[in-house]
Amino acid sequence: MHNPATVGVGLLGLGVVGSAVAESILRRERDPGSSPRLSFRGAVVRDASRPRSVTLPGGILSTDPGSVLDNPDVQVVVEVMGGVNPAFDYISTALRAGKHVVTANKEVLAKRGDELLSLSMETGSHLYYEASVGGGIPILNTLADDLAGNEIRSIRAIINGTTNYILSKMGSEGADFNDVLAEAQQLGYAEADPTADVDAFDATYKISILARLAFRTSSSPDSIYREGIRQVAAKDFSYARELGYTIKLLAVARRSNGGLLLRVHPALVPVDVPIAKVNGPMNMVEVEGDLVGPLWLQGAGAGAKPTASAVMGDVLRVAREISGGGRSATQQSSPAGLSLTPMSEHSCEFYMRLTAADRPGVLAKVAGVLGDADISIRSVLQMDVDEKAGTADLVIMTHPAREANMQQAAARIRNLDVVVALDNLIRVEGYPSVP
Amino acid sequence: MHNPATVGVGLLGLGVVGSAVAESILRRERDPGSSPRLSFRGAVVRDASRPRSVTLPGGILSTDPGSVLDNPDVQVVVEVMGGVNPAFDYISTALRAGKHVVTANKEVLAKRGDELLSLSMETGSHLYYEASVGGGIPILNTLADDLAGNEIRSIRAIINGTTNYILSKMGSEGADFNDVLAEAQQLGYAEADPTADVDAFDATYKISILARLAFRTSSSPDSIYREGIRQVAAKDFSYARELGYTIKLLAVARRSNGGLLLRVHPALVPVDVPIAKVNGPMNMVEVEGDLVGPLWLQGAGAGAKPTASAVMGDVLRVAREISGGGRSATQQSSPAGLSLTPMSEHSCEFYMRLTAADRPGVLAKVAGVLGDADISIRSVLQMDVDEKAGTADLVIMTHPAREANMQQAAARIRNLDVVVALDNLIRVEGYPSVP
Repeated sequence: MHNPATVGVGLLGLGVVGSAVAESILRRERDPGSSPRLSFRGAVVRDASRPRSVTLPGGILSTDPGSVLDNPDVQVVVEVMGGVNPAFDYISTALRAGKHVVTANKEVLAKRGDELLSLSMETGSHLYYEASVGGGIPILNTLADDLAGNEIRSIRAIINGTTNYILSKMGSEGADFNDVLAEAQQLGYAEADPTADVDAFDATYKISILARLAFRTSSSPDSIYREGIRQVAAKDFSYARELGYTIKLLAVARRSNGGLLLRVHPALVPVDVPIAKVNGPMNMVEVEGDLVGPLWLQGAGAGAKPTASAVMGDVLRVAREISGGGRSATQQSSPAGLSLTPMSEHSCEFYMRLTAADRPGVLAKVAGVLGDADISIRSVLQMDVDEKAGTADLVIMTHPAREANMQQAAARIRNLDVVVALDNLIRVEGYPSVP
Repeated sequence: MHNPATVGVGLLGLGVVGSAVAESILRRERDPGSSPRLSFRGAVVRDASRPRSVTLPGGILSTDPGSVLDNPDVQVVVEVMGGVNPAFDYISTALRAGKHVVTANKEVLAKRGDELLSLSMETGSHLYYEASVGGGIPILNTLADDLAGNEIRSIRAIINGTTNYILSKMGSEGADFNDVLAEAQQLGYAEADPTADVDAFDATYKISILARLAFRTSSSPDSIYREGIRQVAAKDFSYARELGYTIKLLAVARRSNGGLLLRVHPALVPVDVPIAKVNGPMNMVEVEGDLVGPLWLQGAGAGAKPTASAVMGDVLRVAREISGGGRSATQQSSPAGLSLTPMSEHSCEFYMRLTAADRPGVLAKVAGVLGDADISIRSVLQMDVDEKAGTADLVIMTHPAREANMQQAAARIRNLDVVVALDNLIRVEGYPSVP
């Protein structure tokens, strides 16, 4: 099955991921036994004078996108620049020119993936993007190929390494968000501007991409319920632990009321389920299908080499398809799909932490408001009495309640005279039957 | 990308897995929107009068293998009979007739996979076998496709659900092997004749298949070091826990001394690594690649529906390739590969449990023998003194030692007058740097 034809590859972007991809391609070029054969034809960068970790052959580097996009020797374009512009235009140009595209760009796939995938279908050029979600974890191909015989019921994932690192540290050390964030920034686990991660934009892009593939359902990132981790306090971890939970930032896509409910938010997760045990910058995707049951994929969700692993997997897939003369149309999704179920229809148990007056009758008032909204209480903890202030922490766990009802009740509870503050309201992720 | 052509599928075998596959195919037949389109053309069984859980259309069932193998309307043959004979002949016949084959048969793939894969290359017919390892876990395609850019360093796996169920129960309940085995047999987790599972033949087949794909290295199951779980006692779990470990049956393929070392045996695993947390009949495969780092795939390793999930993934892959006109040659491996490193060259820490005389000087004698074999002791526990018998359990943990040295030392220790019995010798699985 050794195919003597070589497949020409061009790179857009030569940052840490691009450099790791370049090294992989160069290593394969040097190995005469590698199959399919790749040939490195060009790399486009913004600043050609910047020092690079990878040593490229002469004539490869250029600041002109045309050196790759208009190069007849390039059959596969690898886009690892990130961002929507100019990546969207470059990918479109490449697909229209009959070139196949492999990209690690979650933002352009989440925001304009429908257009790009349609264009790929029209032109017959492949568009592969395994690296855009979960780094080296092969979740897209698993959904597109291996689970193709399944009806997917749900995807629940830890797909942002920065926030999982921060939450794991908060949980294990009892540290506060701001301290751990500062430490993560020093260690390079968090960006100087951490918004994309800690406010969960990144996870929202990724669940949008997963939902398109697994449920054939398009969603703009704006249409997805999104809540970051800034509100989570060290206290919440210790109370959650007391109750048998830890706290994770989950991205969830689940069939609900005949539609698909997409949501990204911190959640209490029972300590004994697989997703609760994933710590540090690791990612985990839990998929449930009607045939396969639950399936868990865990690995490094970011980083140059793991991302390059996914990029190279796709490049070699395209190269095999070029050599074999066919296309398998994976990582595509026909535009059937489900409607989006609004977050207000979500139903789950809730964890509510209040600072309340430390005197009799407080719980009755809070319980009264919850009862009015049809929400019943599962358990109550009174913690951390502050005798000087005359207050205490009240931690309430509810039975399953509708999101809309809980939001109404929460607004009323905030206004009760006996309540100093509703400090946090965290959804509990349901695991009815875990093996 | 909707393709109006339908792909004809024939089934060899209609047991629990075959029935689940048949139901999946029939469900897709009824769904006009499914793509690629499948058409169920025949099912071969030994006894046509046996009642089945699935209701088949008339004319589908036959006791004549030719009704599928010689049927011009069948393009994909699904073999779910198991065993080497007559499966090997049927698969060969199908491949020679230009039919593609999807199989769940680990035994035929492990024992005669080289011949079948060569035949597939020669004839251009595809042979896919994702379902043969890890049930619904997409490990073969992950190795063949997604990690194609990696050099695989090691595979360590829990790939036998029966033994993991038994070991988990022994660990959590302090129960003995025979009691848990009997219970597992009642629950249907273990066969009436449990040899294939508890003596680790099944796991050996699977690691042989994984090694062929990941390291392009052929191994007959006979050439793989194999040790089952009958020797593991409840005591070993409690001592292991004391030392920070649990006990798992691991199947391991790892580069070693320029070759590949394959081994299947019970191992002490640190309690905090992912593979230690996989309990019950679940499977987990841990792959380490030079780019991706460690990657963990976890799911149901057996059962009708999970296995059908993997079979259907492969059937749909073949069907897409037939529709698309090409072949991607995945799940193949060119016959380069590594030589097999013998088990005697393995090196690891050891856990040794002795029943020894409870008097001074015993440890000095045992330590002397170990020292002669160049093995140093990391820690010693003296447990369970039996005053009546005048004996005690001695649990010795060693520093890394060569297998050959340890086997020599163990033989001498068995003969020491102060040693009543060398009750168990279990290898410790090394996890130098776990995230």
